[in-house]
Amino acid sequence: MDRPRFVFDSAEAEQMAKQSGRTLLQFLPSLVKSAQAVARPPISKYHVGAVGIGSSGRIFFGVNLEFPGLPLNQSVHAEQFLITNLSLNAEPRLKYIAVSAAPCGHCRQFLQELRCAPDVKILITSSDDEKENKINNNCNDEFTPLSDFLPHRFGPDDLLPKDVPLLLEPHRNGLSFCPDLCSVKSDCGEEDLKYAALDAANMSHAPYSGCPSGVALVDVEGKIYKGSYMESAAYNPSLPPVQAALVAYVASGGGGGYERIVGAVVVEKADAVIKQEHTARLLLQCISPKCEIQVFQCEKAI
Amino acid sequence: MDRPRFVFDSAEAEQMAKQSGRTLLQFLPSLVKSAQAVARPPISKYHVGAVGIGSSGRIFFGVNLEFPGLPLNQSVHAEQFLITNLSLNAEPRLKYIAVSAAPCGHCRQFLQELRCAPDVKILITSSDDEKENKINNNCNDEFTPLSDFLPHRFGPDDLLPKDVPLLLEPHRNGLSFCPDLCSVKSDCGEEDLKYAALDAANMSHAPYSGCPSGVALVDVEGKIYKGSYMESAAYNPSLPPVQAALVAYVASGGGGGYERIVGAVVVEKADAVIKQEHTARLLLQCISPKCEIQVFQCEKAI
Ligand SMILES: [Zn+2]
Ligand SMILES: [Zn+2]
Repeated sequence: MDRPRFVFDSAEAEQMAKQSGRTLLQFLPSLVKSAQAVARPPISKYHVGAVGIGSSGRIFFGVNLEFPGLPLNQSVHAEQFLITNLSLNAEPRLKYIAVSAAPCGHCRQFLQELRCAPDVKILITSSDDEKENKINNNCNDEFTPLSDFLPHRFGPDDLLPKDVPLLLEPHRNGLSFCPDLCSVKSDCGEEDLKYAALDAANMSHAPYSGCPSGVALVDVEGKIYKGSYMESAAYNPSLPPVQAALVAYVASGGGGGYERIVGAVVVEKADAVIKQEHTARLLLQCISPKCEIQVFQCEKAI
Repeated sequence: MDRPRFVFDSAEAEQMAKQSGRTLLQFLPSLVKSAQAVARPPISKYHVGAVGIGSSGRIFFGVNLEFPGLPLNQSVHAEQFLITNLSLNAEPRLKYIAVSAAPCGHCRQFLQELRCAPDVKILITSSDDEKENKINNNCNDEFTPLSDFLPHRFGPDDLLPKDVPLLLEPHRNGLSFCPDLCSVKSDCGEEDLKYAALDAANMSHAPYSGCPSGVALVDVEGKIYKGSYMESAAYNPSLPPVQAALVAYVASGGGGGYERIVGAVVVEKADAVIKQEHTARLLLQCISPKCEIQVFQCEKAI
């Protein structure tokens, strides 16, 4: 089987659309089924696929991930995977999403962290039942703005000054390891993993708590996957850093199981009010029991 | 200071409204500020209050709870607190909500678990900024149905057969302790706590995972508080059983701190795919370090 792919560059995307005799936007919904095929929902068996177009013209895939043995709030929805995928690929703006099922409220809320969120256009492709057929007929297969899916929104506007960077915008959190850690010398590979996690923490979106954090995972082949904590104005829909790193693993790890993850580093602030360490350990121990987990503390450089 | 109250019976509610020269519905929004005053948001300092009327005519309060030292997905929103409060008081239907801020998507999704959710009427009372003023003016202080807040909803209809009981409807999960546990005799008080947790598990709403669970807490005075796990069709907005028990503690515990909780029992299925034990321990250890935590396994009686 081909290695699953989660990003297509703009020339490739245009080419695929052209071959199918459609515009890129008309073509987008036809990709949703192939996204669904690579979802990992062992609990619900409910495969969700979300396919998005970014401002660069690239196409991004998102799928849902579920983790047996833990509470359901550890799950990653397809729309959150999609946003994380854009973030991993430094895509500054999401324009359109085609998704296999009506986005849940949790995801509609998470999407509010994007600049101009109300203008993101969404199309639901499923037509399994009458209700959804009706929606699709109503909008004639046209994309509907997110503002129609979450009117009277609660979002960053309600809590943040206008000049704070939003999700997908550049973040430079200015974090470095706490001084006492600099003296702890580890071998070269471990240093790479540690600094990858610090890097992820420096790109973390945590304007509400002021507690950015990052995770780096390494697989049996030594390949490193970074994940940045992404916070929501509504708190609960926030995506923890391990989940973000697992998105990176699924999106570029070649489709293998989580047991191929053999090492992990969590980096967070020494005095963090929002602490990821303990739940990060729970999740990693659950999906990859042999994974060696290390936690390092960082602080904001003066 | 008066002991904070979270439920008012219907005669009392009517009386209060009459004294203010208003109908019950006109009076409801004026209670939101007193709900906000008893919220417990040590992280955000953002006090949210939600006040609801049930089908019995009783008034229920809901407030937000936040827990420093853990990820933000452990927080309880005011609307979730409100629903849990109705459940604790066996109120079968929620009719109206007045709430201090626009409900977030996570809560709009959680509310979908109610029978006739789209008909629940909501009024946002805050008018701090222009945007919200506009909303209030548009609807002339009238209540707006939840269907306008979460159109094209994803909900129980998408996953469950029609005859499955929804949230706030009677649940009898038919669980009993696993046989090997029956022989473990503990003192009388401990037995009470253990059976309270089993009771809570038997009332748990977990139709999506089939993993009901319950928690019982006991405070320094020996008073017991039960919490049932409540699942959401969208998974992540599900309310874990410790959070539900903490709602019971806040709503009827007299306003004391969590350190007054000295004992806890978690009950869940032996073979549960959704396991509450570990995150329940994390949360309880974090808010009440001296709390003694026990976990018992149950099974469905044949
Ligand atoms: Zn979702
Ligand atoms: Zn909420």
